[in-house]
Amino acid sequence: MTIYDISEKAGVSIATVSRVLNGSSNVSEKTKKKVLDVINKYEYTPNAFARGLGLNTMKTIGIMCADSSDLYLAKAIYYIEQKLRANGYDSILCCTGYQLENKISSLNLLITKKVDGIILVGSNFIYENDADNKYIADAAAQVPVMLLNAALDAPNVYSVVSDDYTSMYEAAAQMIHSGVRDMIYFYNSNSYSGKKKRAGFQAAMEENKLFVPGRSLQYYQGSHEDIPAMAEHLKELSDKGISFHGIIAADDTLALAAVKYAKAKHLKIPEEISIIGYNNSMLTECCDPPLTSIDNKLETLCQHLISTLLGVLSGNEMPKKTIFSGELVKRGTTR
Amino acid sequence: MTIYDISEKAGVSIATVSRVLNGSSNVSEKTKKKVLDVINKYEYTPNAFARGLGLNTMKTIGIMCADSSDLYLAKAIYYIEQKLRANGYDSILCCTGYQLENKISSLNLLITKKVDGIILVGSNFIYENDADNKYIADAAAQVPVMLLNAALDAPNVYSVVSDDYTSMYEAAAQMIHSGVRDMIYFYNSNSYSGKKKRAGFQAAMEENKLFVPGRSLQYYQGSHEDIPAMAEHLKELSDKGISFHGIIAADDTLALAAVKYAKAKHLKIPEEISIIGYNNSMLTECCDPPLTSIDNKLETLCQHLISTLLGVLSGNEMPKKTIFSGELVKRGTTR
Repeated sequence: MTIYDISEKAGVSIATVSRVLNGSSNVSEKTKKKVLDVINKYEYTPNAFARGLGLNTMKTIGIMCADSSDLYLAKAIYYIEQKLRANGYDSILCCTGYQLENKISSLNLLITKKVDGIILVGSNFIYENDADNKYIADAAAQVPVMLLNAALDAPNVYSVVSDDYTSMYEAAAQMIHSGVRDMIYFYNSNSYSGKKKRAGFQAAMEENKLFVPGRSLQYYQGSHEDIPAMAEHLKELSDKGISFHGIIAADDTLALAAVKYAKAKHLKIPEEISIIGYNNSMLTECCDPPLTSIDNKLETLCQHLISTLLGVLSGNEMPKKTIFSGELVKRGTTR
Repeated sequence: MTIYDISEKAGVSIATVSRVLNGSSNVSEKTKKKVLDVINKYEYTPNAFARGLGLNTMKTIGIMCADSSDLYLAKAIYYIEQKLRANGYDSILCCTGYQLENKISSLNLLITKKVDGIILVGSNFIYENDADNKYIADAAAQVPVMLLNAALDAPNVYSVVSDDYTSMYEAAAQMIHSGVRDMIYFYNSNSYSGKKKRAGFQAAMEENKLFVPGRSLQYYQGSHEDIPAMAEHLKELSDKGISFHGIIAADDTLALAAVKYAKAKHLKIPEEISIIGYNNSMLTECCDPPLTSIDNKLETLCQHLISTLLGVLSGNEMPKKTIFSGELVKRGTTR
């Protein structure tokens, strides 16, 4: 869509289109409306304008995350920002919240802002229902889309993921090996990554014939950072007669709540109860004893994601999906 | 700067300028260069283009913060994002790091992206040397600039701040009142807000003739989230013979390190050592015993900042500076 097309479709001269585009007052309201109608209809945006200028790259990457106050997502954004800047790219971030509708409008906003590529941070951008993922494929028709710890099979979409399934499987296997038989999986997310973690835990339990439906998996539905409420939830489970000598948590915040619960019950850690967190965040050292946690190699993931993106932008053939292994970092909350 | 001006200054027809702007191949390289030179010289950006289109508002606010993985800043971004969205605004965020040069380029980037206003989150955007703050005043010449917990006296710049000085003064006064005489102030930032906190502590100590230069103020220069290193720093102070029975920390992370230090030294909290943090973050509940901390009313600040910004954008007269009081939230680490 060029200025010539607008002129033709609006039935006015190019000079008139130019005058409208440049805000000249020397145009009648009626004529202005004709031109703007065509522009709106064909979505002739400043975006197209910039491309026309030969400014094919603004050296800017759009980043989206659901909630920048989530410790894991915040850290990911930090690494991504740093690595983009080191490579001469600016970045702009949209915090979308968890509603699909807002994710779609944020993605459209970034496209309008003429970004060279888009990074979706965290696994909650991918939905079970494939139709709900169309917004990502649509964006990828315009710019490369990178997924951090999520995967989607669509052209121009690239994934870098941590092997959450295996990490959780190994954490559970390790706790079983240490002698705990009745541990629970304490989680609060059913995202792409959340499901893989849960499945890894469940597989290890089932292999050892320790999985008890309705009991081994404990879902917490509440604020993502209200540690006292999470601890209270565990206390209620215990009060209901569900006993457990181990807790594997889907993130470090939930694990800290487990530690808080154990202390309130005067259970010795790790002698009477073992606890494992996930993300190996700064919270592991906020904990007394320090928290055993799974390091999902976030910085490595981010590094790899950026080099893949830069490769794509340079026109190189890059892997569609890359998987990294996590690692259990043993500290004071496990035997 | 209109397309007419470009045409005139480049000495080519308007149609030619249009062709260049729209990326038509039907223009010689020489002519294209003439036009682009004028455009570059006069900074005729897509920004101006959009304004010319009458798209005076994109309903988008630019947010800048130094480090989105900082707990306090991350939370502030979260509140601001939510409140903007509730009012129909999109937002885009730039994480700038702590270098002035990067702050300036991020600010320019946001202006280019046609934001309606800019929010600088956190006090590290303001420098002692007034000349270094020129980039903010320059931006404010184009769009309103809001400062969260920082202040700058310039047209079109609005500040919403927490009264850090008084909060720290009261925390110190409270600890003195509880019987501690030799507490130290443990800090790691000399930002606008950082200085006010430190001054509040110092004032309370001086009034009680307890301030000891070179001893009462203890600066930690290291990673902002390496709790073991912070705790080690306190241990080294103690090993050097500097004794203290209270620690007032500039943020909750430093306070958690103080708790870790106390536990390593087998000091009873709060009987043998009192500890106060700042920000009243989720970390207060990660701590055992739960951490006494100053609530600086971050959500209230953010709420007020957004309503001020919306008022400014609606053309209303709004207060240039608003100050809120903090509040000491007593938990288990103080008597």
